[in-house]
Amino acid sequence: MAYPKAMQELIEGLGHLPGIGRRTAERLAEAMLDWEEGALQRLGDQIMHLKQRIHHCERCGNLSDGGLCAICRAPDRTPRLLCIVEHARQIPAMEKGGRFHGLYHVLGGRLSPLEGIEAADLNLQTLYDRVADDAVDEVILSTSPDVEGEATAAYIAAELRARSAVAVSRIALGIPVGADLTFADAATVAMALDARRPMAATH
Amino acid sequence: MAYPKAMQELIEGLGHLPGIGRRTAERLAEAMLDWEEGALQRLGDQIMHLKQRIHHCERCGNLSDGGLCAICRAPDRTPRLLCIVEHARQIPAMEKGGRFHGLYHVLGGRLSPLEGIEAADLNLQTLYDRVADDAVDEVILSTSPDVEGEATAAYIAAELRARSAVAVSRIALGIPVGADLTFADAATVAMALDARRPMAATH
Repeated sequence: MAYPKAMQELIEGLGHLPGIGRRTAERLAEAMLDWEEGALQRLGDQIMHLKQRIHHCERCGNLSDGGLCAICRAPDRTPRLLCIVEHARQIPAMEKGGRFHGLYHVLGGRLSPLEGIEAADLNLQTLYDRVADDAVDEVILSTSPDVEGEATAAYIAAELRARSAVAVSRIALGIPVGADLTFADAATVAMALDARRPMAATH
Repeated sequence: MAYPKAMQELIEGLGHLPGIGRRTAERLAEAMLDWEEGALQRLGDQIMHLKQRIHHCERCGNLSDGGLCAICRAPDRTPRLLCIVEHARQIPAMEKGGRFHGLYHVLGGRLSPLEGIEAADLNLQTLYDRVADDAVDEVILSTSPDVEGEATAAYIAAELRARSAVAVSRIALGIPVGADLTFADAATVAMALDARRPMAATH
């Protein structure tokens, strides 16, 4: 009750963000009271018009400023290698590795019988179009390593093989780099053992 | 580079909030992409117009919707007991105790020779006006328990005693309820020992 109405409403609004509890929302709202008027205007405007300013790449489905996304426009990326992800928000994580120089294809979800998401609901026809006419050498399936992600990967692999000679691979699953084996879950350990590789004899 | 411009700007804006690092700002911005247009409009508007909608209570300096704050307007609070705090944002913390039924007085800071904040910069004249004519029985000094907060409390106590017969007290400092003594700092332990009270012989 001690907060004025405008503060209470802001605190409730911020509280809808993931990981922002009541106390954190209060702290953020209090901090904003100390901001300059102009900074509040800018942040408010950025939030208010976010979705109007964000588009989806007409080729891969990634977030974009309009038309093709920055990755599809980049001259140094090869269109012969495609990485399939469930959501556009997973692309920045892939990019952080700095290892992948191909293009992406965003499914917009994964097969989920429980949620009623079928193949027709995913951005698949455009994927089949992209791999047609030998335009692509390899498709890397990077759906999540859980039941639905694995089922989605298996489904797409079968569909692609039925339609083209494109090579289909699955991103490697295993112990995360820098992680302590102590804290790895059983499924990850099993997966990492199955995927073990021979050590090179010399260095 | 993987985020479109509107996302990057939002992420930078959110990153200016306390405790929100780069990764958290990214996560918040990504979550907002899944929000309904209307929810983004509301939150943007709440931030944009926050300071225009928040006023300061003309009596105590607390945040208010305009005119007197909710506490000064409440009929069940006694104006004969005043709690002095440095900032309006500390009032919700005091209110959470549910123990205090008097009114507040917000200083708007504390004496700080290092930052060049002197008595004339604080909201003190209105405090002296409020305690004049025996209008107040007791003033509880709840400035922070650090060097500047203690100096500010000592200064105000002396000024009040020179001007009126009002009782002046200091909020108790000690081990926080529920805290483990193991983690209490030396100054708090010393303060809590000095302020020890005799145990009641019977219960």
